[in-house]
Amino acid sequence: MSVLVVGSVALDSVETPFGKADEVLGGSGTFFAASASHFTSVKLVGVVGSDYPVHKLDPLRARGVDLGGLEQAEGESFRWRGRYRHDLNSAETLETRLGVFSHFRPKIPTEFRQAPFVFLANIDPRLQLEVLKQVERPKLVACDTMNFWIESRRADLIELLKHVDVLLLNDGEARQLTEHANLVKAARWILQRGPRHVIIKKGEHGAFMFTGSTVFFAPAYPLEDVFDPTGAGDSFAGGFIGYLARTGQLDEAHLRRAVVYGSTMGSFAVERFSIQRLLEIGTSDIRSRLDDFRRLVAFEEEMPA
Amino acid sequence: MSVLVVGSVALDSVETPFGKADEVLGGSGTFFAASASHFTSVKLVGVVGSDYPVHKLDPLRARGVDLGGLEQAEGESFRWRGRYRHDLNSAETLETRLGVFSHFRPKIPTEFRQAPFVFLANIDPRLQLEVLKQVERPKLVACDTMNFWIESRRADLIELLKHVDVLLLNDGEARQLTEHANLVKAARWILQRGPRHVIIKKGEHGAFMFTGSTVFFAPAYPLEDVFDPTGAGDSFAGGFIGYLARTGQLDEAHLRRAVVYGSTMGSFAVERFSIQRLLEIGTSDIRSRLDDFRRLVAFEEEMPA
Repeated sequence: MSVLVVGSVALDSVETPFGKADEVLGGSGTFFAASASHFTSVKLVGVVGSDYPVHKLDPLRARGVDLGGLEQAEGESFRWRGRYRHDLNSAETLETRLGVFSHFRPKIPTEFRQAPFVFLANIDPRLQLEVLKQVERPKLVACDTMNFWIESRRADLIELLKHVDVLLLNDGEARQLTEHANLVKAARWILQRGPRHVIIKKGEHGAFMFTGSTVFFAPAYPLEDVFDPTGAGDSFAGGFIGYLARTGQLDEAHLRRAVVYGSTMGSFAVERFSIQRLLEIGTSDIRSRLDDFRRLVAFEEEMPA
Repeated sequence: MSVLVVGSVALDSVETPFGKADEVLGGSGTFFAASASHFTSVKLVGVVGSDYPVHKLDPLRARGVDLGGLEQAEGESFRWRGRYRHDLNSAETLETRLGVFSHFRPKIPTEFRQAPFVFLANIDPRLQLEVLKQVERPKLVACDTMNFWIESRRADLIELLKHVDVLLLNDGEARQLTEHANLVKAARWILQRGPRHVIIKKGEHGAFMFTGSTVFFAPAYPLEDVFDPTGAGDSFAGGFIGYLARTGQLDEAHLRRAVVYGSTMGSFAVERFSIQRLLEIGTSDIRSRLDDFRRLVAFEEEMPA
């Protein structure tokens, strides 16, 4: 089954202790699409400016990403410039230029409206709500958000929660949204407001999925070389939703595996700048890392004494 | 098989957002013994002052902890006073009074010297080395350390590493000791200096065990109410080594289960002040939480497509 993603398509300039990248492909929609395209067909809705090097998206198109919903508007593209220090835990934003993205009003092409899986990447919750009015009873809606919207669009975000099945956010955002320092309490707060599942991402410390009274945890893969953390969260979402869309199944067993596929794709994304690594890998790489994840947490049943 | 632990026996005064405890049982030896006593017999070596309420250790004795190596010296007992803020992640030490502990020279009673499992809790590495000279070819030696010794006794600590099988330390200490920010690299650095296994504890974010080229990860249990984190690390060590001592097996499967038992015991320790919770629980509580841990990380093999 196909996935519709609505998110940003940007140009990133990133500095890490290991190198620099200038004006490379970035944005939540881009990372999500590159990641999810390993599992199923992806329909991308977003906007770029007249200066965007659209041909650089050809590798995504070659991977089956439908760019029919990518509008090219008069003006500058969304640009983000950031830096990671030695510990790589948090990005320091040096510059954000929204450009045409500041006037983005997602228009879902008719042929995208029946996509059974929908990911609302991190954009204004009012726009996320508008997208939901344009789609036709998807099987699963997931969304992401960020501190900026939690502060400035709290009421809209809480309205949005009533209409999504899965909320993905990081631990800091979960604490900010719910005003609970404890993540179990934060998750319960969110589950009471609409979503059936909440995924709390803790970066290098892994991710929790809370569902009703059950909880699942997947560690982040202990990489020796994290090159550039940009896009890890959206690549996680791409693996998670991409896998679910491929199988069309939403039971607990599939959801748990989806979280591990999410962690897997996030772990690849950080090995290179931009979506580079996501474009290099194939099914056997993904399967092999999934096996690594299994070994990482596996412990055997106790033998009878 | 029995476990010998050499560590501190102290009086803790702790403040958390949830309450206060004054002059309660504390110290690395105490927490370790309370935890490990659920698995096997424990021999404790340490020192207390003439003011120590020794009768308060009766519950440990009742659990089979041999206090024959607990010296009572003229002077004040070791006292620690600390506070945890809202996030419970790190203790703020308000006062440390070493008292008789500052002159501690561990003397291992003859009948303790053949203990097959030895845990050198967090004390001066020179004393940890002295303990090793007094014991007779243990099957497994594990040790803990802290930032203070990494700074002030670096050469002794590195000498000690040549003689231990397992080093347990937290992520900050691992980074400080090895000067590697990346934990995979930090672990490799340590494994090259003696230990066959290194366990890097990340508090609420779980624990890694590195062995040669393999790595195992156990999450911390996502508790809704963490009451007092004091002693979690030593309770982890107690579960880890206690379980290995009970089975006498040191293969990878047993070591992995031991890490989960460690996480289990750490998760109980933080539910009450001092060793209170460790004294309340029984085998069925431990088994039930171990099952919770299994469910927390379990994901099924993929069905054939």
